[in-house]
Amino acid sequence: MNFEEKVIKHEPKFNGHIIDVEVQTVELPNGQTAVRDIVHHVPAVAVLAITPDNKALIMQQWRTALQKVTYEVPAGKLDARDTNPLHAVVRELNEETRMQAGHIEEISSFYLASGYSDELMHLYLATDLTPVADELPQDFDETLNVQAYSLDELAKLNEAGKLDDSKTQIAYWYWQANAARVKGMLHG
Amino acid sequence: MNFEEKVIKHEPKFNGHIIDVEVQTVELPNGQTAVRDIVHHVPAVAVLAITPDNKALIMQQWRTALQKVTYEVPAGKLDARDTNPLHAVVRELNEETRMQAGHIEEISSFYLASGYSDELMHLYLATDLTPVADELPQDFDETLNVQAYSLDELAKLNEAGKLDDSKTQIAYWYWQANAARVKGMLHG
Repeated sequence: MNFEEKVIKHEPKFNGHIIDVEVQTVELPNGQTAVRDIVHHVPAVAVLAITPDNKALIMQQWRTALQKVTYEVPAGKLDARDTNPLHAVVRELNEETRMQAGHIEEISSFYLASGYSDELMHLYLATDLTPVADELPQDFDETLNVQAYSLDELAKLNEAGKLDDSKTQIAYWYWQANAARVKGMLHG
Repeated sequence: MNFEEKVIKHEPKFNGHIIDVEVQTVELPNGQTAVRDIVHHVPAVAVLAITPDNKALIMQQWRTALQKVTYEVPAGKLDARDTNPLHAVVRELNEETRMQAGHIEEISSFYLASGYSDELMHLYLATDLTPVADELPQDFDETLNVQAYSLDELAKLNEAGKLDDSKTQIAYWYWQANAARVKGMLHG
């Protein structure tokens, strides 16, 4: 089956602070044309960070796009300093939670909004957490509050509809599916 | 702790086919100002549709933003005809898989990209699938291939890095965490 759409025109529409937007005209497999709104965004990382007493570090943060506070796993964009996503995980854990991890492994990588955005997010599991010696400066425009939640506490937040961030949903259901293995990794 | 950012300026930047973009200037809790790129998108639905023989219906689809074919659970935007998200689930199941569901329940709702997009996705679990009597017309610009995958087959796709769509990751890990309950719901 032939799925491919050939891009026959790119029209740049917006260059922003964290996204660029263009409209692509594509030729469909059946020969017709269609237009696609496309958002470009750098790759990002997120991390399910589990404390020695088997709790996940969760950030509360104001999200302007949603006009509310969300509960989210620590996350951040890759920047020019990052030769690979793991560097960004280490930095974000330091900046947002003041912790470092003795063990980090990848859970999965995924596109947040495949229909129109090329943002790729790499999700990690981090354990063996200890406080950092050197605290990196936090972003001036992020107001964060970090707290540790057990899996049962996250389940209650989820049932209340408060765990409504996509990467955090993946981390949550991953943890539900792998609770025994994660617990076995801890040195509490 | 005060998180709220007050929007002090809206600058519309782009009105597209499926997204609108604006730049917001916000006043931070500490009194400084910052700018936020914001993408507006209508709410959407996605569905983990499980066949009587315990397989999930997965679409293969070309994604222009990613320049490749993805594996995704059936999904679609809410439109003016939808008085609630369930209507959209029933329509998308018909359009994309030619199936109807005897049982539909909500898994969770989440924002796909909380950092800059207000797109809210409602994810459902659907069982008791039977072929539809009346087939709705498919979107002219979607080339789809639907196949049924067992949980083990999805796990292999995931391990190969091919299950890289965020809503599909949530559906997959939800299924992993609830495999026994889902199996018990089937009338195979």
